[in-house]
Amino acid sequence: MMNLYEVARFLEAHDNYDILTHAYPDGDTLGSGFALCLALRQIGKKARVITTGVPTKFAYLQKNIEEEGFTSETVVSVDVAADSLLGSNMDKYIGKVDLCIDHHGSNTFTAKEKFVDKYAAANCEILYKLFLRMHINFTKDIADCLYTGISTDTGCFRYTNTTAETMRVAASLMDFGCNTAYINKAMFETKSKNKIQLERAVYDSMTYCADGRCAIIYTTLDMLKKLNTGDDEMEGLASIPRQIEGVLIGITMREKEGGFFKISVRTNNNINASDFCSQFGGGGHPAAAGCSIEGDLETVKTTLEKAAEKFLS
Amino acid sequence: MMNLYEVARFLEAHDNYDILTHAYPDGDTLGSGFALCLALRQIGKKARVITTGVPTKFAYLQKNIEEEGFTSETVVSVDVAADSLLGSNMDKYIGKVDLCIDHHGSNTFTAKEKFVDKYAAANCEILYKLFLRMHINFTKDIADCLYTGISTDTGCFRYTNTTAETMRVAASLMDFGCNTAYINKAMFETKSKNKIQLERAVYDSMTYCADGRCAIIYTTLDMLKKLNTGDDEMEGLASIPRQIEGVLIGITMREKEGGFFKISVRTNNNINASDFCSQFGGGGHPAAAGCSIEGDLETVKTTLEKAAEKFLS
Ligand SMILES: [Mn+2]
Ligand SMILES: [Mn+2]
Repeated sequence: MMNLYEVARFLEAHDNYDILTHAYPDGDTLGSGFALCLALRQIGKKARVITTGVPTKFAYLQKNIEEEGFTSETVVSVDVAADSLLGSNMDKYIGKVDLCIDHHGSNTFTAKEKFVDKYAAANCEILYKLFLRMHINFTKDIADCLYTGISTDTGCFRYTNTTAETMRVAASLMDFGCNTAYINKAMFETKSKNKIQLERAVYDSMTYCADGRCAIIYTTLDMLKKLNTGDDEMEGLASIPRQIEGVLIGITMREKEGGFFKISVRTNNNINASDFCSQFGGGGHPAAAGCSIEGDLETVKTTLEKAAEKFLS
Repeated sequence: MMNLYEVARFLEAHDNYDILTHAYPDGDTLGSGFALCLALRQIGKKARVITTGVPTKFAYLQKNIEEEGFTSETVVSVDVAADSLLGSNMDKYIGKVDLCIDHHGSNTFTAKEKFVDKYAAANCEILYKLFLRMHINFTKDIADCLYTGISTDTGCFRYTNTTAETMRVAASLMDFGCNTAYINKAMFETKSKNKIQLERAVYDSMTYCADGRCAIIYTTLDMLKKLNTGDDEMEGLASIPRQIEGVLIGITMREKEGGFFKISVRTNNNINASDFCSQFGGGGHPAAAGCSIEGDLETVKTTLEKAAEKFLS
């Protein structure tokens, strides 16, 4: 693996960059991509960002990046942990990636050179340190991109991946003039009308069992159809039941085509979510796990209620 | 006004402290109170924190603070912006406060000496700098208290009062071992069952008008009675309608005893909330204002819908 100085020298030595981001893009992969593009152009290189489409909420990240025509010579990926995550760009690029920069400890991406730092809260945190070693001038646009990646990957500095170092990098980006007011509002205080409708339906579905120590919410195919909404609005729903005071097991049931439900389990107080899910052939982490169960809504729900009551007794 | 070095010397020169916090206590006043108590005891003083009761969710702040019996000689207030905010402790203490430490620019509190820094995101941010000048050893308990105040007053570093300095203070507190995982979960990822019930009812009340550019939610006395809930669960509700994509005016109506509604208005995109409310004899800030309107639910709601449509046309 390269170290960060070697990455800096590599980027200075090459030119005509295609920068790869992952599919279903988040703030970190796009923030990383556009920040790196701006930094490379600043030192006289040609560069462009390859995406599977930039969602409207992230459009501000590319507002000062005009398209450039050139023949690609060097391919760099940012925040891409596995080949399949390139989505529709996979076939064109896999086997041709020169450098992979990432922060996922699980990284299996195919690339000639790699820099992976699993202690970085976001890929943008790595780029901040990389840019220091490249003597990049941290413009407001670059700072906006990097702050976006760091704040979105940490739930605005709330998740446990946030380190003191993460906070100091964010502080420096604020010194460089990033627009935290706009970014935090757009990222954390804006919900689509569909999302609101879905949350409303999900709240209405909520029931408790095991003396209030288990909460269950669900979505059905019917509900999603009626609300004209899909899987992209489901983000974050699974965290709702665990947030409730006194709840040890929070269960989210999502009906899928084919007569089964995908079950997400989140737990508090060292209740083992993975053990709970293994009863149904699933698994995962101690506080967040999943499984699939066949059956209709009432049957699957009753099965889970009984399992929760037994598990907590 | 004293400067921070003078505050440090004052605290070192006196003894037997009553530390005053404000009523309806939040993380900042309690975090400030318990942190100051621990710091004063560390330099050999007697000190205790005076509250109107510590809500269960903040109990961890005082877990290593035993009660001490002594006769009060010095009274210091933390995060208290006005006399009335002492609540049930007002009569006993007003006129006897030696030193007021606060971060509210609007501070009118009656005290012999004052230190007010309106640029501090939280009172705990001031105490961090004060403790440096007192050569306090930042124990984990002190760091937990200060981080709690800073994170709660900034919505976990999301609100616009958060500065680069705030981030660096939080980073230092993390270096000193504060338990961000526990604190962030307890402060930002835990909701009471009552609160969930209320949010559910409020989501069900939501309607749009002015082509989706205005969203209205409400609570009635009936709803609160049925849910067996009160004003303390209302916190944060007013921010829901403004979060919706495309909404310029977010209105929250709360029925009060006496046949009227308290109206909270939050706006986006420079729509002036204060101007909107002034039509009904209210006022406030450009993006957050309020007023009261007499009438029953349907009448008041129709009035607001018409006003919003006119205001946005
Ligand atoms: Mn990432
Ligand atoms: Mn405060």
